[in-house]
Amino acid sequence: MVNIAVLGYGTIGSGVVEVLNINGDSISKRAGDKINVKYVLDLKEFPGDPIMDVLVHDVNVILNDPEVKIVVEVMGGINPAYSFVKEALLKGKSVVTSNKELVAKHGAELLDIAKERDLNFLFEASVGGGIPIIRPLNQSLTADEIVEITGILNGTTNYILSKMTEENLDFDKALKDAQDLGYAERDPSADIEGHDSCRKIAILSSLAYGMQVDFEDIYTEGITKITDVDIKYAKALGAKIKLFASSIRNADESVYAMVAPMMIKSEHPLYSVNDVFNGIFVRGNVIGDIMFYGSGAGKLPTASAVVADIVDAAKHFDKNIWTIWSSKKLDLVEVSSVKHRFFIRVLKDGNSLSNIRDLFGEIEELSSVVENEYAFITPFISEKEMKDKKEKLNGFLGSIRVRFD
Amino acid sequence: MVNIAVLGYGTIGSGVVEVLNINGDSISKRAGDKINVKYVLDLKEFPGDPIMDVLVHDVNVILNDPEVKIVVEVMGGINPAYSFVKEALLKGKSVVTSNKELVAKHGAELLDIAKERDLNFLFEASVGGGIPIIRPLNQSLTADEIVEITGILNGTTNYILSKMTEENLDFDKALKDAQDLGYAERDPSADIEGHDSCRKIAILSSLAYGMQVDFEDIYTEGITKITDVDIKYAKALGAKIKLFASSIRNADESVYAMVAPMMIKSEHPLYSVNDVFNGIFVRGNVIGDIMFYGSGAGKLPTASAVVADIVDAAKHFDKNIWTIWSSKKLDLVEVSSVKHRFFIRVLKDGNSLSNIRDLFGEIEELSSVVENEYAFITPFISEKEMKDKKEKLNGFLGSIRVRFD
Repeated sequence: MVNIAVLGYGTIGSGVVEVLNINGDSISKRAGDKINVKYVLDLKEFPGDPIMDVLVHDVNVILNDPEVKIVVEVMGGINPAYSFVKEALLKGKSVVTSNKELVAKHGAELLDIAKERDLNFLFEASVGGGIPIIRPLNQSLTADEIVEITGILNGTTNYILSKMTEENLDFDKALKDAQDLGYAERDPSADIEGHDSCRKIAILSSLAYGMQVDFEDIYTEGITKITDVDIKYAKALGAKIKLFASSIRNADESVYAMVAPMMIKSEHPLYSVNDVFNGIFVRGNVIGDIMFYGSGAGKLPTASAVVADIVDAAKHFDKNIWTIWSSKKLDLVEVSSVKHRFFIRVLKDGNSLSNIRDLFGEIEELSSVVENEYAFITPFISEKEMKDKKEKLNGFLGSIRVRFD
Repeated sequence: MVNIAVLGYGTIGSGVVEVLNINGDSISKRAGDKINVKYVLDLKEFPGDPIMDVLVHDVNVILNDPEVKIVVEVMGGINPAYSFVKEALLKGKSVVTSNKELVAKHGAELLDIAKERDLNFLFEASVGGGIPIIRPLNQSLTADEIVEITGILNGTTNYILSKMTEENLDFDKALKDAQDLGYAERDPSADIEGHDSCRKIAILSSLAYGMQVDFEDIYTEGITKITDVDIKYAKALGAKIKLFASSIRNADESVYAMVAPMMIKSEHPLYSVNDVFNGIFVRGNVIGDIMFYGSGAGKLPTASAVVADIVDAAKHFDKNIWTIWSSKKLDLVEVSSVKHRFFIRVLKDGNSLSNIRDLFGEIEELSSVVENEYAFITPFISEKEMKDKKEKLNGFLGSIRVRFD
């Protein structure tokens, strides 16, 4: 019997207990032993829930019990999760977590502590919910140099953009729909401003390139400026707008990372990733292009990933599962030099196609879907050029990066 | 330094050597040690190739060298691969293979031998080329009861069906194109008759359900009967025809497996898997639906999967990586009881819509794309009912199973 403790009995924590109950027999078979929830830590009480028999309010009961071999941290946030997790590792327990903030900020340190002690610190559920991506990056794509990771990593924003596209809604209405359905929180900023995606691409990049990618260094733009007019132009082009979280390695081995809306066409493997689903595209220098798709959030899919990590931890007592993520910082390329094509909308008033051509060169002019506007796609230009040229435009209405290649 | 031997210097074998050369540094970092090709076994000579320095013609040189820790079998076929692999395991070497025939037929036995000796028998490249699917099934989806695996597992047939769709080609022309491009062999029967897909779904099913699924038991139908007229009907329906290899677990835990062309719509995650790409859809009882996509064949993608297994074997000396695949046989449900909807074409001559309705009940009638034909989709009926009713139809032209739900 393998004794575990679950820290936090919220959505994911209760999902973990539920999955262990539903699939207990097959999980035991896969783990080679029965997984027993010896403790659940939560400040609240849960009258009538069988979990009350194992509920504790003091983390030290767990940390000081040598029978607890695996600690499952599903509280979220940095404090007190960080100190609980660190202490658990220092006391010789492996840790499984779904906490992207914790992993993005302290992953390298916690992995080091685990490695030194032949323990494991596993976090499959921190990115992509149920989608297996951490373990494939660590253990399956080991023959490759990763040259690109691009994910649709946030279900809330993908749902909003999908609704805007399918039902011609404006951003505010689509956000409200997402909130009514429980897909977006009352304060949706972490999702819609791209911060959630940013932490997730920081984790994937650190694992892929083997160095610490600080999420604070990643240029991050959310979807709040996307309008129903932008969506109409995208549709006219046979394109969709998706919130992409990317990190890309250049030929000189420098890396840039960015979270930003992107216009893509049906040739892109992530084009069909709609609604609350997530998709992660990976390009390796020998494997070519692969893609992983599934539920990026939700109680049971996320709990499935947490429990898979518990099984892996149970199969690897006294054996550290290797990652190449070191604490050495990876200095990302300044985003100002990164080049994209841009879709741009400007007022007709104060502009002419010839002054636009003077500014941007060979643009691709688009048929207007709204009166009084010019819309066009620029050649490849750097972020800095875009910023400079934008200031010279009259009546600038908006721009979206384009990846049609 | 970890010494390995590569059995077979054909496309995949030379790809393995190439990948180890291209990415040697990062592979060493991931494996924790340098991977050294001590021997390559092949009957041929390769004048001018640096591999000549390590080429041997006698497998016993490899089997009897205790320095060789990992044997990489990329010869294909059952003989002599089976005896070489078995002997290598019995001599205490881990084995990595890309050989789907070998794994489908002898996987359970070879896994048992490896497990008893704390060795590993790994075969990521045997299904889906470079796509990570074996390791995710074994190590990531461990919290789930798998209820369905459906794959587009053969790039050749997917290429042929894609060309028929995109360029309105008939089967023979599309096959010839595939042969000219080297995607199909001169004798294409293993691909187009579905035998390749059959072995691959047998492997995935054995891993998912933990029992031996014999490929001979799987109902297998290829794509040779698909015509350009079928494709026209599919297009008119907004559908595509794909060669599906499926195994599905019913609520009573019985399993059926089938390889057959299937008509699907854009809602299905595998709809966008075109050309030589493969896709594998997995449904778990808690994770929900996930999908893996990538190059299902090709020298470097397949070699990438082989080398990833070499890395994993090197990280797991003296530790068997657990699978639940046992040699106990899984008796599949008789296919005659399996239900689908069917797309059917019949000659108008000798039929009427009313006699068709008398036979099939509430059919969905389709607008003809060809004169003199009726085309319709049946309600859900069993394979046995379909067979019986088909014999009562006059001028039967063809049928394709439909999965539009």
